[in-house]
Amino acid sequence: MPTTRPKVGIVMGSDSDLEVLRETIKVLDDIGIPHEVVVASAHRAPDQARKYAASAERRGIRVLIAGAGGAAALPGFLASLTPLPIIGVPINSTPLNGLDSLLSMAQMPKGVPVATVAVGKWGAANAGILAAQILALSDAGVRKRLAAFRKAMAAEVQQGARRVAAQLKKRQ
Amino acid sequence: MPTTRPKVGIVMGSDSDLEVLRETIKVLDDIGIPHEVVVASAHRAPDQARKYAASAERRGIRVLIAGAGGAAALPGFLASLTPLPIIGVPINSTPLNGLDSLLSMAQMPKGVPVATVAVGKWGAANAGILAAQILALSDAGVRKRLAAFRKAMAAEVQQGARRVAAQLKKRQ
Amino acid sequence: MPTTRPKVGIVMGSDSDLEVLRETIKVLDDIGIPHEVVVASAHRAPDQARKYAASAERRGIRVLIAGAGGAAALPGFLASLTPLPIIGVPINSTPLNGLDSLLSMAQMPKGVPVATVAVGKWGAANAGILAAQILALSDAGVRKRLAAFRKAMAAEVQQGARRVAAQLKKRQ
Amino acid sequence: MPTTRPKVGIVMGSDSDLEVLRETIKVLDDIGIPHEVVVASAHRAPDQARKYAASAERRGIRVLIAGAGGAAALPGFLASLTPLPIIGVPINSTPLNGLDSLLSMAQMPKGVPVATVAVGKWGAANAGILAAQILALSDAGVRKRLAAFRKAMAAEVQQGARRVAAQLKKRQ
Amino acid sequence: MPTTRPKVGIVMGSDSDLEVLRETIKVLDDIGIPHEVVVASAHRAPDQARKYAASAERRGIRVLIAGAGGAAALPGFLASLTPLPIIGVPINSTPLNGLDSLLSMAQMPKGVPVATVAVGKWGAANAGILAAQILALSDAGVRKRLAAFRKAMAAEVQQGARRVAAQLKKRQ
Amino acid sequence: MPTTRPKVGIVMGSDSDLEVLRETIKVLDDIGIPHEVVVASAHRAPDQARKYAASAERRGIRVLIAGAGGAAALPGFLASLTPLPIIGVPINSTPLNGLDSLLSMAQMPKGVPVATVAVGKWGAANAGILAAQILALSDAGVRKRLAAFRKAMAAEVQQGARRVAAQLKKRQ
Amino acid sequence: MPTTRPKVGIVMGSDSDLEVLRETIKVLDDIGIPHEVVVASAHRAPDQARKYAASAERRGIRVLIAGAGGAAALPGFLASLTPLPIIGVPINSTPLNGLDSLLSMAQMPKGVPVATVAVGKWGAANAGILAAQILALSDAGVRKRLAAFRKAMAAEVQQGARRVAAQLKKRQ
Amino acid sequence: MPTTRPKVGIVMGSDSDLEVLRETIKVLDDIGIPHEVVVASAHRAPDQARKYAASAERRGIRVLIAGAGGAAALPGFLASLTPLPIIGVPINSTPLNGLDSLLSMAQMPKGVPVATVAVGKWGAANAGILAAQILALSDAGVRKRLAAFRKAMAAEVQQGARRVAAQLKKRQ
Repeated sequence: MPTTRPKVGIVMGSDSDLEVLRETIKVLDDIGIPHEVVVASAHRAPDQARKYAASAERRGIRVLIAGAGGAAALPGFLASLTPLPIIGVPINSTPLNGLDSLLSMAQMPKGVPVATVAVGKWGAANAGILAAQILALSDAGVRKRLAAFRKAMAAEVQQGARRVAAQLKKRQ
Repeated sequence: MPTTRPKVGIVMGSDSDLEVLRETIKVLDDIGIPHEVVVASAHRAPDQARKYAASAERRGIRVLIAGAGGAAALPGFLASLTPLPIIGVPINSTPLNGLDSLLSMAQMPKGVPVATVAVGKWGAANAGILAAQILALSDAGVRKRLAAFRKAMAAEVQQGARRVAAQLKKRQ
Repeated sequence: MPTTRPKVGIVMGSDSDLEVLRETIKVLDDIGIPHEVVVASAHRAPDQARKYAASAERRGIRVLIAGAGGAAALPGFLASLTPLPIIGVPINSTPLNGLDSLLSMAQMPKGVPVATVAVGKWGAANAGILAAQILALSDAGVRKRLAAFRKAMAAEVQQGARRVAAQLKKRQ
Repeated sequence: MPTTRPKVGIVMGSDSDLEVLRETIKVLDDIGIPHEVVVASAHRAPDQARKYAASAERRGIRVLIAGAGGAAALPGFLASLTPLPIIGVPINSTPLNGLDSLLSMAQMPKGVPVATVAVGKWGAANAGILAAQILALSDAGVRKRLAAFRKAMAAEVQQGARRVAAQLKKRQ
Repeated sequence: MPTTRPKVGIVMGSDSDLEVLRETIKVLDDIGIPHEVVVASAHRAPDQARKYAASAERRGIRVLIAGAGGAAALPGFLASLTPLPIIGVPINSTPLNGLDSLLSMAQMPKGVPVATVAVGKWGAANAGILAAQILALSDAGVRKRLAAFRKAMAAEVQQGARRVAAQLKKRQ
Repeated sequence: MPTTRPKVGIVMGSDSDLEVLRETIKVLDDIGIPHEVVVASAHRAPDQARKYAASAERRGIRVLIAGAGGAAALPGFLASLTPLPIIGVPINSTPLNGLDSLLSMAQMPKGVPVATVAVGKWGAANAGILAAQILALSDAGVRKRLAAFRKAMAAEVQQGARRVAAQLKKRQ
Repeated sequence: MPTTRPKVGIVMGSDSDLEVLRETIKVLDDIGIPHEVVVASAHRAPDQARKYAASAERRGIRVLIAGAGGAAALPGFLASLTPLPIIGVPINSTPLNGLDSLLSMAQMPKGVPVATVAVGKWGAANAGILAAQILALSDAGVRKRLAAFRKAMAAEVQQGARRVAAQLKKRQ
Repeated sequence: MPTTRPKVGIVMGSDSDLEVLRETIKVLDDIGIPHEVVVASAHRAPDQARKYAASAERRGIRVLIAGAGGAAALPGFLASLTPLPIIGVPINSTPLNGLDSLLSMAQMPKGVPVATVAVGKWGAANAGILAAQILALSDAGVRKRLAAFRKAMAAEVQQGARRVAAQLKKRQ
């Protein structure tokens, strides 16, 4: 089934990160982008992670999304091993609330970029959208479905407006 | 000359940001990616900025790179107006050293991602590389030149090693 | 009914911000300032937001209050589109506790101010008072009711003193 | 000469703050808003500061702009003594780069708002513009000159674009 | 009863601060230092606060302890009005976790010190001990009772050691 | 029983730190490194703490692990008194979430290092592993058991992958 | 000469801190408080520091002022060894600008307070004033000279006002 | 010459880090610990870095010291590949002053510790001392020389005291 061959690899450093990265999965499902989910640790199991990164491109993966907390080296580790674009999702799993993972991803040294998004669930959803934007450049189907997704999002603002109106009425 | 039709738009909020964004220009030139440079302000001249963003896709631009300092709304502003992927370069032009611009880009709300890179020159160079990685997905020429760029970068590490060895010798 | 024509527009980026902005509504109701509540997103539905901002002045709005979380571009977005004074209420809706939204509002670049108040409910209440202070400059009725509001506030300090005295007695 | 009776009071905690607040003076001069400059310290000379604040309204002042560094209590001090709107300019005069003065102004408790702008010169200029926006609500002359100021600012973006083009040419 | 004439004034900006400042009260009671508790707001009721500060010295108060959250101006306000030493207790009552109140107290400008202690309950207890240390310089009774308090504290460390030993045993 | 003579001393400033430091105990037990647990306060009972540090080396302790919160002086205090390597575990027991204890440990002045690990439970576990790495340099048994521990850790990543697969299946 | 017997001990962790602590010396000289200056390191020479702290009280010292940078343990170290009040001056001698030393002093655990003042020179001057306020409680001469010092400070605000007026004139 | 076979590997991510890491070299030279200096990048040349880490133990290296700036993944990368203890030196080479590199090292996830020291030169010197402390556990010669180094350090405090005394005299 060629259409379900994964285009995006979602990589998490720990299975406890799944709760946040479900937002990424949901967005990719909504836009109809086939993906795979992988647990891989730059620090605790670097060999597996390296093999995964090294093979991703030839297996047809176009974008990697990596979520991690604390000294979140995972996306940078993948970025050092593959020319594919890497999106980093900082996860707030330490007492420092994700400032540590945000800086560990965004502040990558010259030469090896990580496309960093927001800490936590907002960022996880946005990672999916960003992957879709990148794929849409060479995939008219994704482009079309992304446009629909964006329209639905604008419509959601109006629904929010209705919810606010309803709540304000209730109080009176 | 169709090959020089710009693929990447580099947008800056103020001409004082050019010093940092020269790093982006240099990388894109090195990898051979045609680009254009634009001054546009989300806050001070929103109409021009909107027109630029709205027309970018149909003019052949594939990726937008926006640098700004302080409450750095520019990349998010562009992201709200075009489905193209947007890369944000936080610039340290206020006394808060770029923490303000980093958070103003990375912490984008759910729905409108900005691919945020490091504060300042490291980030500016990485924005160029990230754009190349994205374009390489559908452009074999860029893919090849990006691979060469990455090889040169690894070689640069060895040159750094030689410089260190030379300096340590001198001291003895 | 000319007296209820709204003078203040309260704009929120998401309906989940209503919980915080109810404090603004309460203050404006207390001081008797007619207002309207709008859901508008600079990022997800920029066209609606722009139309709202562009028409606000001629519809009689004198002050806009905008609450948002994360990379909180909404007040700056409105400020770029209308000469009306804009008050920004940073909302702590991300794991970074509102430091992100505070910096995204306060650190506006030269040329386009946002009058930023405190993160969360304190700030939401203060946004209402600040709007009243601005309106009071040209509206004797508001000025009078604001003076009464301030007197009540000072009296509230004395009631707090009584509550403390009562609690300390209980413990003995 | 009634037109030069000051409408805005610029208050600074120390004469060393003048360097930053010159930006405020320049903006008010540009827009043609009469103003006065005062040195007053909430901490070191509270009686003078109180007298100034208490008399400001009846002397015709409509907006107070206060700049201070460190634990920057000055704008909040003024706000507790007058119903006029107070704009706070955080100044980066301590080793903490102005984060201290920003938080000391923005985080005002419920009841006594300070309209806080950016740290340093950007904020000082914006304080002048915000004061103009407030005065413009009841002064058609200011409204007109503010509109011209905003147009000039948008034009300045285009001049910045020309400077960038010139600089890029030079390098080739 | 002259011995119960208060030596320390505990001032809080809001009755919600009592929960934290109970730690101060408990320490002063333990060491046997007569004190009074006052609700006073630098911002919402400055006249009362000023009267309290101005009369404190002649009423026999030797040290003032002021707790407040957010832009915590209260201790600095008192310090500007009386030569008595002022101890500031930053309270974490905003989403910024007390970093705002810590900086608003510690970063007082040259000329008007606030003796700042830790954010929250640790600081509230330490404010009481610091007041005792100051009073002990001229009061042999306080000096003696403070010495006993410090001994009890050291003994408490040994009790903690026993609790740890007991808990570790339980697990085996 | 010579094999159970403790090699590592785990020192905590307060018995409330035990909850975090249990992670250290667990790791040392897993790798089979004999250890002792001590409550000692640099601030509240400095004499006991000094005696403990001074005697540690001759009693056969090779590494000290010290956990503390706030202005976490304990590891640095021990480091000033013994040539043994000191590992510091910052504990998030104040409203500032452990940033205070992290800086109080890591930023030790030139001359007296503290090997600082992550805030909270991650760091507590890592302190145990770091102690094992140090001991393994001269203890073949520890080296072997540490290697097994690391293998188990890599295997755990694969188990996490299975848990993720199971959870994703459930949702479908 | 009994009047010159030092009442205040100024302790610094390194001779490079003298530049900042000269502000303390200057204030104490101005108010006429005899003092001594000591270099003592909690970390690098703890025995000397302990002896100094232990003997301070019986040698007539009433207040200790300790300045240090980084993980600034010195004031807390002294506080653990003497019942005298300790004032801590955070010094910005690391790349983290003094946030590290501020937190290492202010966040002292329950039981052992450090009266923390501002980072750097402002704080150094304020440490001297705070010491004077404490001594003034039992020394009428200091009280009188402190009152004069405060008056001079208020007068200095007026001189600042004149300097500002002069500078503004010059520009016209 | 077997005694000069390196025991410590000093690894830097870029030759620009040498300026800071010279402090490490100086300390190791002073204590007489043979070492080697390596430029290796986890991100730009991961294969070389991996080979270096994998061979370090069998080549006789006992401790690795890694310095890096920004998203400083280098020490964690090495830690994932060798059981040797890794010391991380955060370097302040970005506009964020080293807070980014400190968090990227200290906040390592459970399982893979990095012994983190202070940002910049203080930390670089301390990394050398910490390595000496670790080696001293099984090397009597290092233990002896380390003791001498610590004594010299304490003596240096007294020299600082003399320098302060001399400077204070000069001013009189």
